[in-house]
Amino acid sequence: MARKAGSHADITGPAIRAAALRLFARSGYAAVSMRQIAAEVGVGAGALYLYTPDKQTLLFDLMQEHMTALLAAWEAVDKGSTPQDHLQAFVAFHIDFHIDRPDAVFLAYMELRNLSPGNFAAIEALRRRYENQLQSILENGSGTGAFKIDDARITTMALIAMLAGIHVWYRDGGRLSRDRIQTIYRELVRRTVSP
Amino acid sequence: MARKAGSHADITGPAIRAAALRLFARSGYAAVSMRQIAAEVGVGAGALYLYTPDKQTLLFDLMQEHMTALLAAWEAVDKGSTPQDHLQAFVAFHIDFHIDRPDAVFLAYMELRNLSPGNFAAIEALRRRYENQLQSILENGSGTGAFKIDDARITTMALIAMLAGIHVWYRDGGRLSRDRIQTIYRELVRRTVSP
Repeated sequence: MARKAGSHADITGPAIRAAALRLFARSGYAAVSMRQIAAEVGVGAGALYLYTPDKQTLLFDLMQEHMTALLAAWEAVDKGSTPQDHLQAFVAFHIDFHIDRPDAVFLAYMELRNLSPGNFAAIEALRRRYENQLQSILENGSGTGAFKIDDARITTMALIAMLAGIHVWYRDGGRLSRDRIQTIYRELVRRTVSP
Repeated sequence: MARKAGSHADITGPAIRAAALRLFARSGYAAVSMRQIAAEVGVGAGALYLYTPDKQTLLFDLMQEHMTALLAAWEAVDKGSTPQDHLQAFVAFHIDFHIDRPDAVFLAYMELRNLSPGNFAAIEALRRRYENQLQSILENGSGTGAFKIDDARITTMALIAMLAGIHVWYRDGGRLSRDRIQTIYRELVRRTVSP
């Protein structure tokens, strides 16, 4: 994180990240300039560079924050005791966490290609760590006979893709309530791995 | 389609579309200029404008071609007779069609936001038509009792997202053969809807 110490940076930093997230999600990383981000926050371009060395660092910080918040939040979830409990907890958590962060989710998918190789590797490692949480649940359940799974890695990727797809069509106030969406997806996932 | 009649355009047109697809997929639509596309084909920028009025039309043509080819190819598939046959045929078809077109798939996801509103609506209508093919299969199977489905629309979106996710990790020559991937996903989908 390129954040400067001190109370001014502590206020400006989050405001800059929020503005960058909004602008990147709306127009795409490539189309947004540091000058536009500064204008959106209401500071000069010079003040922006006090906070972050460049646009690439801003993009990386946003993606890294999203992934570390995701991992920390999952860590804190009460996961129950059986493999079925764990899997249901994962599905509920994944939907809840992502449905309120459409801009961050959009960025995580759309702007991976704009990360520098080193930054890409760091974000990929965090994604992999999250995927591995689900993969462990599937492997444990497969070991106890709670689940029937052909290939735990592919099933992990298939289930995460299925859940990630919600952001494509979900709108607040749409045909289905969040609870109903939760119920449908929990059932879809349950069936996908049940013996 | 902005294609001009005549043999010159018949050769140049596909070359221009292929070059645009390659460049858009590599660098993103926003970052690619008409001049770069012309250079990639080996024609002057003037010749490019004989073929297509602007970059937006090129993007739209590429996405429209992809979707109409997809719909025509599905039309031609031997789908078998039972709802289970239809569903298995859809999964096999979807994987086969998309796995060989990574650039077009990438474009279809990443550049939707760069379509003008009218073009976006046209592509969305084609996507919806494709989704409806799967939805009909699910509804028919639900009607005969072959499938157990909570919500045919959501299940459609969930299954298409699951299948679309393959392009994120699939690489030719990777750990799993295409046949093995087909088998795993056919089984995942079968379980997701079986009563």
